[in-house]
Amino acid sequence: MPAVTYQLKQKDAESNARLGRVTTPHGTFDTPAFMPVGTQASVKGLQPTQVDAVGAQILLSNTYHLMLRPGSQLVKQMGGLHKWMRWDRPILTDSGGFQVFSLTDINRIGEDGVTFRSHLDGELIELTPERSMCVQNELGADIIMAFDDCPPGVGDGDSGLGVGQEQPAGMSEPQISNPNPQSPTSRHGVAVADYPARVKLANERTVRWLDRCVKAHERTDEQGLFGIVQGGTDLMARTWCAQNVTQHDLPGYAIGGVAVGEGFDQIKLVVEHTAPLLPEDRPRYLMGVGYERDILMAVRAGVDMFDCVLPTRNGRNGCAFTPTGQIRLKNACFAEDAGVLDPGCDCPACGGGFTRSYLRHLFMAQEMLGPILVSAHNIRHFQRYLLDIRRAIAQNDWSLIDRHWPVAVKRR
Amino acid sequence: MPAVTYQLKQKDAESNARLGRVTTPHGTFDTPAFMPVGTQASVKGLQPTQVDAVGAQILLSNTYHLMLRPGSQLVKQMGGLHKWMRWDRPILTDSGGFQVFSLTDINRIGEDGVTFRSHLDGELIELTPERSMCVQNELGADIIMAFDDCPPGVGDGDSGLGVGQEQPAGMSEPQISNPNPQSPTSRHGVAVADYPARVKLANERTVRWLDRCVKAHERTDEQGLFGIVQGGTDLMARTWCAQNVTQHDLPGYAIGGVAVGEGFDQIKLVVEHTAPLLPEDRPRYLMGVGYERDILMAVRAGVDMFDCVLPTRNGRNGCAFTPTGQIRLKNACFAEDAGVLDPGCDCPACGGGFTRSYLRHLFMAQEMLGPILVSAHNIRHFQRYLLDIRRAIAQNDWSLIDRHWPVAVKRR
Repeated sequence: MPAVTYQLKQKDAESNARLGRVTTPHGTFDTPAFMPVGTQASVKGLQPTQVDAVGAQILLSNTYHLMLRPGSQLVKQMGGLHKWMRWDRPILTDSGGFQVFSLTDINRIGEDGVTFRSHLDGELIELTPERSMCVQNELGADIIMAFDDCPPGVGDGDSGLGVGQEQPAGMSEPQISNPNPQSPTSRHGVAVADYPARVKLANERTVRWLDRCVKAHERTDEQGLFGIVQGGTDLMARTWCAQNVTQHDLPGYAIGGVAVGEGFDQIKLVVEHTAPLLPEDRPRYLMGVGYERDILMAVRAGVDMFDCVLPTRNGRNGCAFTPTGQIRLKNACFAEDAGVLDPGCDCPACGGGFTRSYLRHLFMAQEMLGPILVSAHNIRHFQRYLLDIRRAIAQNDWSLIDRHWPVAVKRR
Repeated sequence: MPAVTYQLKQKDAESNARLGRVTTPHGTFDTPAFMPVGTQASVKGLQPTQVDAVGAQILLSNTYHLMLRPGSQLVKQMGGLHKWMRWDRPILTDSGGFQVFSLTDINRIGEDGVTFRSHLDGELIELTPERSMCVQNELGADIIMAFDDCPPGVGDGDSGLGVGQEQPAGMSEPQISNPNPQSPTSRHGVAVADYPARVKLANERTVRWLDRCVKAHERTDEQGLFGIVQGGTDLMARTWCAQNVTQHDLPGYAIGGVAVGEGFDQIKLVVEHTAPLLPEDRPRYLMGVGYERDILMAVRAGVDMFDCVLPTRNGRNGCAFTPTGQIRLKNACFAEDAGVLDPGCDCPACGGGFTRSYLRHLFMAQEMLGPILVSAHNIRHFQRYLLDIRRAIAQNDWSLIDRHWPVAVKRR
């Protein structure tokens, strides 16, 4: 019996959406599922019991950050990530690839792996497929991700979400530098003319690195390894990569390199093209996505798993999600607003009766309770949204989404 | 029936300690009691339900901070402090006096009141006894404090705790400047030779201002006004002030101007002298105290109420209270410590099984959850301590404290 299994429970009549359940050594989660991000083994501002209470069934944590601090050996020594952070439900760790490419000062990228300088202390560190597997084996998440070559995207800056990682304190936001839209460059200075070549190389390397990940993964009975399909916005490259990645019989497959700045229409093209190329009897995970509209589109294309920093990152900045769009609590119009964030919400902020007036005060006064309450609310918002999506599939009635989640069809 | 009443339940055989209960419009609290500080209408990092869960029965909030932001009229408009911050148990607000004298750039101190510049935006603001009462009437706490003239203390810097106020973000710690121990000056540059004169004036003014507070207090049916005894370390001045303040029949009396830097022995002298001068059938409140040892001494001198920022301020800095003393979690020795902060504690951190190793990681990684968990632990530490003190009085057995709280008798 593999560590991670997928049960397809129901297929939607009018789209490729699927209702399912994933079983892991730390219990099950219902799909389509949204994973809050706990970058440094903590969902920022919330105790695990609170994350559970707002309905999250699985968390994502970041290999890159934990490898640097406190180190995966320490986590292993303390009994593994679940025991250490006191979260007894499923955890997924990413491979560290995305962070290495988006956050660090890269020294060298080669066939063997990547050498980079730690964003914490400048130490020179090498990350290879084997090392990523070793670190993820030590952390002990239920689902671990293949180490892929992920060149930064070139885009319009509209939907670059900083895939699956929360901002550590003191670090500047990862930026996709595009000073001149006529002559875009990637973050690492690759001119646009070279871009297709870089994508092709990354794609092929991702496939070769997957072979090495499969060989290096030592805890197959306790952890399921997901492969990742890369290929940028080149649909032929996506097809080629999907064909090669699915040569490995893995418990799940992911679509990577999406939502790195390329805009909704491009994301839609890629997802609707790639999702059907992945086996129907395995969960499909769209990495780092996203807004409500992105999720709805991807669910209807057949995707089962999502993760994004939006609920907590925006929550910390005083932006609260509602079914009709985000509101910015620092705006003066909320000073005397006696209503809760969303009357239909049962989160600690709304259910607890905290008014927009009070929440605004917390942000104006720089009180920690502001980020805490709005992060909890935002996670609950996404969990309630996914709950309704699962209900829409189960009842074959998408009018539920149209009625209750106008934000999902609105242009943001 | 006054808004606030005190029931003396039991007197200790071997000391002046008393077991009692205070009844307010928002319920009762057991004394001796320790009040966590929620400076800006929030106990930093904790939801009110969590503050309740760690055993706090009454909170302190700061008039000065709320008057400046968001303003007491807004709080009144939103239904008052209890409703606004979602805390349905008793609240005490201070008068703003201490903050005006310790935090602001004072423009003028006169018989009428104090004119100062807001630490937020430099606005020139006047605070008088009448204005303090009006603001506290608008905030709507169960217990409100008289506006007193409180010249900053001159001391050894050992026990200046920043009485009853939490540090707003971005504000430097209030310092008692004493560049030369041979020639100390107060924070406002009063030379030590003038100090007794300033204490005498402040003392007499505090009594005159109390008359004005009593006249200005408009919600006597809903809020109990406590008088404050000043007098510095001059025991004659304390006696004079206590005699005059207790001329007013008030629901409670406080000892102010203590723990502003004068050291344990001086605090002990003042408290043991002053507490017995206050009526036995009213609660006695020692403002801004303190460490476990200070509290034990004061309880045995007959004090019933305490407040201090120590649990939350130190919690935010990674200092955890234990029965044997504080531990500094950032120390490397805790990196692989698989134990909880205090095995005898039932707080969310200890009861939740979070190890010192994990808590240290949270502080090293600047994760909000560190301050949150250690603040909750520290508040619980003080509530458990007060619970044991009440038990010691009830059972007439102080060996309970000696056995379980060695920190209370240790020199810190």
